[in-house]
Amino acid sequence: MSDRTAPQKLLLKALAGEKTASIPIWLMRQAGRYLPEYRKVRADAGSFLDLCYNPRLAEEVTLQPIRRYGFDAAILFSDILVVPDALGQKVAFKEGEGPVLEPITDAAGLAALGPVSGVTKALAPVYETVSRLKASLPSDVTLIGFAGAPWTVATYMAGGRGSPDQAAAKLWAFRDPMGFKDLIDILVEATIEHLSAQVDAGAEVVQIFDTWAGSLPELSFERFALKPVQQICDALHERYPGLPVIAFPRGAGGMAERYFKVTGANGLGLDTGVSPAWAKQHLQPQGCVQGNLDPLLLVAGGHEMRGQASYILSVLGEGPFIFNLGHGIVPQTPPEHVAELVKHVKGWRS
Amino acid sequence: MSDRTAPQKLLLKALAGEKTASIPIWLMRQAGRYLPEYRKVRADAGSFLDLCYNPRLAEEVTLQPIRRYGFDAAILFSDILVVPDALGQKVAFKEGEGPVLEPITDAAGLAALGPVSGVTKALAPVYETVSRLKASLPSDVTLIGFAGAPWTVATYMAGGRGSPDQAAAKLWAFRDPMGFKDLIDILVEATIEHLSAQVDAGAEVVQIFDTWAGSLPELSFERFALKPVQQICDALHERYPGLPVIAFPRGAGGMAERYFKVTGANGLGLDTGVSPAWAKQHLQPQGCVQGNLDPLLLVAGGHEMRGQASYILSVLGEGPFIFNLGHGIVPQTPPEHVAELVKHVKGWRS
Repeated sequence: MSDRTAPQKLLLKALAGEKTASIPIWLMRQAGRYLPEYRKVRADAGSFLDLCYNPRLAEEVTLQPIRRYGFDAAILFSDILVVPDALGQKVAFKEGEGPVLEPITDAAGLAALGPVSGVTKALAPVYETVSRLKASLPSDVTLIGFAGAPWTVATYMAGGRGSPDQAAAKLWAFRDPMGFKDLIDILVEATIEHLSAQVDAGAEVVQIFDTWAGSLPELSFERFALKPVQQICDALHERYPGLPVIAFPRGAGGMAERYFKVTGANGLGLDTGVSPAWAKQHLQPQGCVQGNLDPLLLVAGGHEMRGQASYILSVLGEGPFIFNLGHGIVPQTPPEHVAELVKHVKGWRS
Repeated sequence: MSDRTAPQKLLLKALAGEKTASIPIWLMRQAGRYLPEYRKVRADAGSFLDLCYNPRLAEEVTLQPIRRYGFDAAILFSDILVVPDALGQKVAFKEGEGPVLEPITDAAGLAALGPVSGVTKALAPVYETVSRLKASLPSDVTLIGFAGAPWTVATYMAGGRGSPDQAAAKLWAFRDPMGFKDLIDILVEATIEHLSAQVDAGAEVVQIFDTWAGSLPELSFERFALKPVQQICDALHERYPGLPVIAFPRGAGGMAERYFKVTGANGLGLDTGVSPAWAKQHLQPQGCVQGNLDPLLLVAGGHEMRGQASYILSVLGEGPFIFNLGHGIVPQTPPEHVAELVKHVKGWRS
């Protein structure tokens, strides 16, 4: 890793707590189906997981949006479900359906999983992608690795697919909190190993996606969202002092304040529903925040997009800040709107 | 309406800002498919809307949970989509699919709607249900009327059905904010008339459901969620001084604080994801709060349900508070868990 005491890259400066002269920008799911060059690679790659496990192609799709838009960060092309896949749970991605897993909802299901020690071996192709990116990325672009947070990954492992209410995971957690905690503990360990291997391979920042954090009631949020991410942050900071970790507890609402403080994350991702004014008052004093343009504003484009982006920039650009969306880019996004947004953010001076 | 200066009913006392000796309880969607007696009526009623427009049967299903559990409030059995139906938009409820509407996404669609003045005429059977309930409810049970908030109703009107991302309404709002505002204005007016007619027929409290408030970015939340509900509260308070209005801006997160203050609502419904500790500090000082047990805890039952209910009661029971769920009861809820929860809440003394 490069000298962490005086970061030169824009994104690393922001994560170190600096208000930067120009605002760094990258977008969640910036490598994806809205790009014709992505769809071309995707069509040739086989399954979605085949693409994730093909270092040459995964490198290529990671680089595509960097070439096109000059983002300040590249995020490894991969998926949060490679961890259950590496643990031995059957994961498939079906066209138009999203991920489908053989659900695990009890101790017997957990017992059938492989050991955490096997995860980084199974995911070697992912770390090879990171190494390739480390070598091929322009020197001013930060390389971000990532993983799903234990709670969010567990919702897929228990539900077998995405669900609007995370019912399977919640019912397990509510009926058998100790048993469910065993799953979370496995995922904490596996996530630490998976993120560490990404850092070893060259990732300069890691982001932890907790897409479904906001659906949990407070007591369960503490146990299954906040605490596991705190454990992961602690372990990473012990292994890699100074490593910036961004946590993204989507929908955490008022609980985000305590979450940011207690987890020890260096940056906090804000979802679309977070008020920038509120974040400036309650979150940014604790560190760098990242977000949070509505992905559908990027689909709409025009002056509503620019106006709402300007609002976010004017409120949060006064402190350490990374511009991003509030959730991932959607496939129907016109690529020219992304170019317009990048130009708008790059031209912004507070 | 009864003497509002000194309410006798438990729910009205809480909404007047009193800390009550025992905590009032009702549950969102307490009349519904989890009850065998409801399923029986439903099977005989024809379509779901036929049931909503049948005063005798709608009265019966409203009363069923009161008989069974002795809740402190009965909420009119109806649906938020009766308003677009009354405005002339085609609404149907398909088994296993939920509501299906002919989508309206532009000015031409708005022009084809009937006048707001026709809404209360079309919904006369709903008000007849309210009148019947007024006469038949036990004297200590509060009668709650309700409507959807303009934003949430608009998401169905534009999308034609429920959607995880409210894309159709958002894209309209982002591409043509003035045109979309015309739809919101129609809904503000229609909602004021619809709620007023319920109060005239005997509703003692009204609740405004903004199920999708939390998906809006701050600037749009201000325009399309907060402001319309403020207009509705203002109009109702002018017509009916002292009428308690409960607003339920689901997912509003940190924006709930300002929302509660600015709308002038008398009570604020908290969704599952709101931290009771946070609400006690930021929301309850402004008035009565209501919520927020996870509906899946009610499915799970047992000590996790009782434990999390106790936590909510101990944190929020010190001030004006109404116990409820954080979202509606789900069909797979065992009726005996509801009985257990009511007993637990009724036995609580802070």
